[in-house]
Amino acid sequence: MAEVGVIMGSISDWTIMEEACTVLGELGVSYEKEIISAHRTPEDMFVYAEEAREKGLKVIIAGAGGAAHLPGMVASKTTLPVIGVPVESKSLNGIDSLLSIAQMPGGVPVATVSIGKAGAKNAGILAAEMIGSFDGATARALDLYKQGLRDKVEDMRRELHERD
Amino acid sequence: MAEVGVIMGSISDWTIMEEACTVLGELGVSYEKEIISAHRTPEDMFVYAEEAREKGLKVIIAGAGGAAHLPGMVASKTTLPVIGVPVESKSLNGIDSLLSIAQMPGGVPVATVSIGKAGAKNAGILAAEMIGSFDGATARALDLYKQGLRDKVEDMRRELHERD
Amino acid sequence: MAEVGVIMGSISDWTIMEEACTVLGELGVSYEKEIISAHRTPEDMFVYAEEAREKGLKVIIAGAGGAAHLPGMVASKTTLPVIGVPVESKSLNGIDSLLSIAQMPGGVPVATVSIGKAGAKNAGILAAEMIGSFDGATARALDLYKQGLRDKVEDMRRELHERD
Amino acid sequence: MAEVGVIMGSISDWTIMEEACTVLGELGVSYEKEIISAHRTPEDMFVYAEEAREKGLKVIIAGAGGAAHLPGMVASKTTLPVIGVPVESKSLNGIDSLLSIAQMPGGVPVATVSIGKAGAKNAGILAAEMIGSFDGATARALDLYKQGLRDKVEDMRRELHERD
Amino acid sequence: MAEVGVIMGSISDWTIMEEACTVLGELGVSYEKEIISAHRTPEDMFVYAEEAREKGLKVIIAGAGGAAHLPGMVASKTTLPVIGVPVESKSLNGIDSLLSIAQMPGGVPVATVSIGKAGAKNAGILAAEMIGSFDGATARALDLYKQGLRDKVEDMRRELHERD
Amino acid sequence: MAEVGVIMGSISDWTIMEEACTVLGELGVSYEKEIISAHRTPEDMFVYAEEAREKGLKVIIAGAGGAAHLPGMVASKTTLPVIGVPVESKSLNGIDSLLSIAQMPGGVPVATVSIGKAGAKNAGILAAEMIGSFDGATARALDLYKQGLRDKVEDMRRELHERD
Amino acid sequence: MAEVGVIMGSISDWTIMEEACTVLGELGVSYEKEIISAHRTPEDMFVYAEEAREKGLKVIIAGAGGAAHLPGMVASKTTLPVIGVPVESKSLNGIDSLLSIAQMPGGVPVATVSIGKAGAKNAGILAAEMIGSFDGATARALDLYKQGLRDKVEDMRRELHERD
Amino acid sequence: MAEVGVIMGSISDWTIMEEACTVLGELGVSYEKEIISAHRTPEDMFVYAEEAREKGLKVIIAGAGGAAHLPGMVASKTTLPVIGVPVESKSLNGIDSLLSIAQMPGGVPVATVSIGKAGAKNAGILAAEMIGSFDGATARALDLYKQGLRDKVEDMRRELHERD
Repeated sequence: MAEVGVIMGSISDWTIMEEACTVLGELGVSYEKEIISAHRTPEDMFVYAEEAREKGLKVIIAGAGGAAHLPGMVASKTTLPVIGVPVESKSLNGIDSLLSIAQMPGGVPVATVSIGKAGAKNAGILAAEMIGSFDGATARALDLYKQGLRDKVEDMRRELHERD
Repeated sequence: MAEVGVIMGSISDWTIMEEACTVLGELGVSYEKEIISAHRTPEDMFVYAEEAREKGLKVIIAGAGGAAHLPGMVASKTTLPVIGVPVESKSLNGIDSLLSIAQMPGGVPVATVSIGKAGAKNAGILAAEMIGSFDGATARALDLYKQGLRDKVEDMRRELHERD
Repeated sequence: MAEVGVIMGSISDWTIMEEACTVLGELGVSYEKEIISAHRTPEDMFVYAEEAREKGLKVIIAGAGGAAHLPGMVASKTTLPVIGVPVESKSLNGIDSLLSIAQMPGGVPVATVSIGKAGAKNAGILAAEMIGSFDGATARALDLYKQGLRDKVEDMRRELHERD
Repeated sequence: MAEVGVIMGSISDWTIMEEACTVLGELGVSYEKEIISAHRTPEDMFVYAEEAREKGLKVIIAGAGGAAHLPGMVASKTTLPVIGVPVESKSLNGIDSLLSIAQMPGGVPVATVSIGKAGAKNAGILAAEMIGSFDGATARALDLYKQGLRDKVEDMRRELHERD
Repeated sequence: MAEVGVIMGSISDWTIMEEACTVLGELGVSYEKEIISAHRTPEDMFVYAEEAREKGLKVIIAGAGGAAHLPGMVASKTTLPVIGVPVESKSLNGIDSLLSIAQMPGGVPVATVSIGKAGAKNAGILAAEMIGSFDGATARALDLYKQGLRDKVEDMRRELHERD
Repeated sequence: MAEVGVIMGSISDWTIMEEACTVLGELGVSYEKEIISAHRTPEDMFVYAEEAREKGLKVIIAGAGGAAHLPGMVASKTTLPVIGVPVESKSLNGIDSLLSIAQMPGGVPVATVSIGKAGAKNAGILAAEMIGSFDGATARALDLYKQGLRDKVEDMRRELHERD
Repeated sequence: MAEVGVIMGSISDWTIMEEACTVLGELGVSYEKEIISAHRTPEDMFVYAEEAREKGLKVIIAGAGGAAHLPGMVASKTTLPVIGVPVESKSLNGIDSLLSIAQMPGGVPVATVSIGKAGAKNAGILAAEMIGSFDGATARALDLYKQGLRDKVEDMRRELHERD
Repeated sequence: MAEVGVIMGSISDWTIMEEACTVLGELGVSYEKEIISAHRTPEDMFVYAEEAREKGLKVIIAGAGGAAHLPGMVASKTTLPVIGVPVESKSLNGIDSLLSIAQMPGGVPVATVSIGKAGAKNAGILAAEMIGSFDGATARALDLYKQGLRDKVEDMRRELHERD
């Protein structure tokens, strides 16, 4: 049974949102993924948000671009934490996505991460952190992940110095 | 029976959205107004959008600020034309509202007008224009309104030349 | 006889504006198309706007980029609803086009859609929606189109789950 | 023992960050608050982040403005979820704060909320939501809060219709 | 007979555009002023632009705000140089005005100056410079004006040093 | 003897600034061109600006990108009209160039045109317009050029209709 | 004999630039101040920059707003380090000042600080840091200053906790 | 023993930061380089900043992109001058990097240079200028470098005129 629901408005968002799923997998957090479009399947979006808690989800990750309404609208229908991933838009590089997701009115929060792939990866880690506050195994997986980030810097240092 | 539905997310938007209602009144177009919040009353928003056509509305005007999802989400639930009014946001002067409303994905249009009071007035006129394409009386009211705009310029000219 | 006039400032806008024409065709709405440049053929623009209503147009769609004056200037000369499509500009990605079209002063509205191809498609749908408020056949075509959007999400879902 | 740590870079941020504390109190979530400046007390920031989990915190809320480094740097030192509140900056209205907080590189997430007071309130609610995924009482408090949002819309509707 | 035509879209622009007239007066350049609204009096705008050269104008200064079409549209109808003054807009501080005026397509130039009062003053000076390239008296007036700018710095220096 | 001086900060600007020279040639206006860098050859810039009028120049066109100081600094040293062409910058697409050139303080105007090639072409036309206010032959060349713009639209129309 | 030259384009910049002078005084670094306008007194600017090193200056701080050319042009004429302070502009809040100062081309650096008073204060500290790299007394003054920043946070903490 | 420390958050920044190292080498200024990530190796960052002065560094150059915290956080831990290089970010072209680095609060300065390669080169020159204020040999190297910039313009002039 999945702890995290990863949803996106279109199959074209998958190359971005895949990053969230990959890192969730690495951290041992179960997830499900689905296409849920705020503008094309609004009813499905409502059903998804309404049923999320009862089916055991702890966090929802929603990716969308342009006038990105999916994360905020899901948040309007659930009290689970919703993480919004601003997908890069074609013309405005995702600044429209970022503002559409981040600038929510008081009362209905969305946890916004950075634009694009880095944001999707961070959405996965953030979801794990939320779970890790209550689950020791996930917390330990996150500690190892953080150690891995440090180790990668060590590798980079060797690479840099070899360039002398 | 109203031809235009004017909705807004909060009573605080009324000082802006009142402009739409006033000009609709001047142009002889019937309207109703309501508070419909995308984020606080999403179910009401769905019901409003679903029932709009059958109760006789021809156009919906929706005003919202910040991460402004009301116009786009109403548009996802109806095939009536939806006009979105970007209300000035507290921090970013409405550029977030404008992008959240205008940058809709292909398939679900919102007719976006300018930020703030000028936009709300224009939303009212635009709704009347849509009706006026099929209704002679409204078209004539619009012609008179346009003549009025020209007349105001004449008044301004006198005022300017008196300043010599 | 055309119900919608689709105009653009340059032949180079056609790859964008073609989206409006295609979707109008799919929705069974008649249209005509023409090159009308605000800056190079201002007189033709005036004539086009003045004659639009009498020749039977119900809506005008105007696409332009950069300092995009075509939609607003056409709107100054007609009381038909005018839809403005911000075409992506070479340097600023269409943010200049969007602001030049959307930020109209009170009294002369332009119905602005999103930047680029998505916006052009939405302009076509929006024009059909305006007509569909008064014409049952167009309303039914729009219902089918909306159903088609939902169906495409179903296809995307299958595609997503095959990627497991 | 506090579940949420609310930190900010300066006493001048308190008028904003107070919103987070107030809503946490309303939702029955325990919190502590402190001034922790990334740039003036970097060592304290490290200690705060390092000790956060062991002293029982589940979430950290960090508010900062301008080149806002507090949320991201705390996130670099803990695997607890960190919520960043972009405080309005003097010259640029908080767009610098928003980008400094949201645009974190892959690996170190910050849950960014909207600029200013609405964002601080949402940070409090979001923290409660994270806890509510694992704690039934908090989940019920959130349900009541959401119902309260709907009720306020009812009040607004009465107010709007009295203006007829 | 006026050498410079100063036009603006609304009497509310006069507090800005007055700066252009004042400096033209100081530089001994004759001017006329008028309200010409691109959107409310498009026909008058065309007539003004068409008759400008034959009535002896050498330069046209046009001020407008928001979706500012006046300078560019006047430029489309005359081969006189047109100077555009971006008037500060209510919501977006004139960045919309600046882009709407400056980003003209190849073929139809507008000489854009800075936003607001500084820009209006500069429009007057720039018009005088255009005339001064062919008229010795105006060139000498500009030399004196430039000397005056230097003298004002001398005054400021005294003021600064008195603050020690 | 040249009437227009076309200067630019680097040989890399030539692909842009060539547009100004080409159109000046087409309009029969004599010009000279030179590399003058505000930041690398400030003394040469001063000499160029000081000698411009006496050697017969009527207008100076200056192209620069990024923190683009060349047009404004030349304007500080001459009372000839200076046209500034914002060259697209590597990272920010020329919005930095545009603001650095357009936002001059009151007293020292620069006639700013659009970003990039369209702007460079327009700089050439604008220079010709300044001359054409006093020179009949240039005015007639501009009339023909404007007619050519209209004719090109005719060609585009044929091309569009052939696409049916 | 002054080690730091603090220059600004106008007396109106003094309320900002005074911050630089105050902190230099606190840090025991000698300074001189002057009005030097890039656009109104370009010759004085050149002289100031040329003579700076020989009269003993180690650093130049230059404040300017809008199309802010003073820091970059001074930098073009000296090999002393130049610190640029972006003064808030009237319309665009200093984003134009920031870009005009920061986006210098390769070869001619300006050390840009934040917009407005915070930036001016930081310019003073940064100048002291440059001197402190070679002068022990200044380095110690900076250490004390940094300690003072930490102490102020202690005071803020007391103030915050008194608000409980 | 190195006078300048060049640090960057990732090996991917090296193509940019290499420019700083190259020019430092050309100017005869000794430097060391290292990967120091604010978000992945915060402890190393603290150690680097704390030990910088005692190991003889006079200046630190730090490059980072997106929510770029490295320069500001290093500055919080040392009183050496810190130069921040905004590396171009994937989505927002470095405007986020620029604001995250430049907009530091009063008390903790960062000397910000332009975005990308030009900025990295300028960081190297600026570091040399800081040293050159106290070291004659470096000052002379900078004079030669500046002469080289002028000579390159001469070369460009020849190239331009050969294009006639």
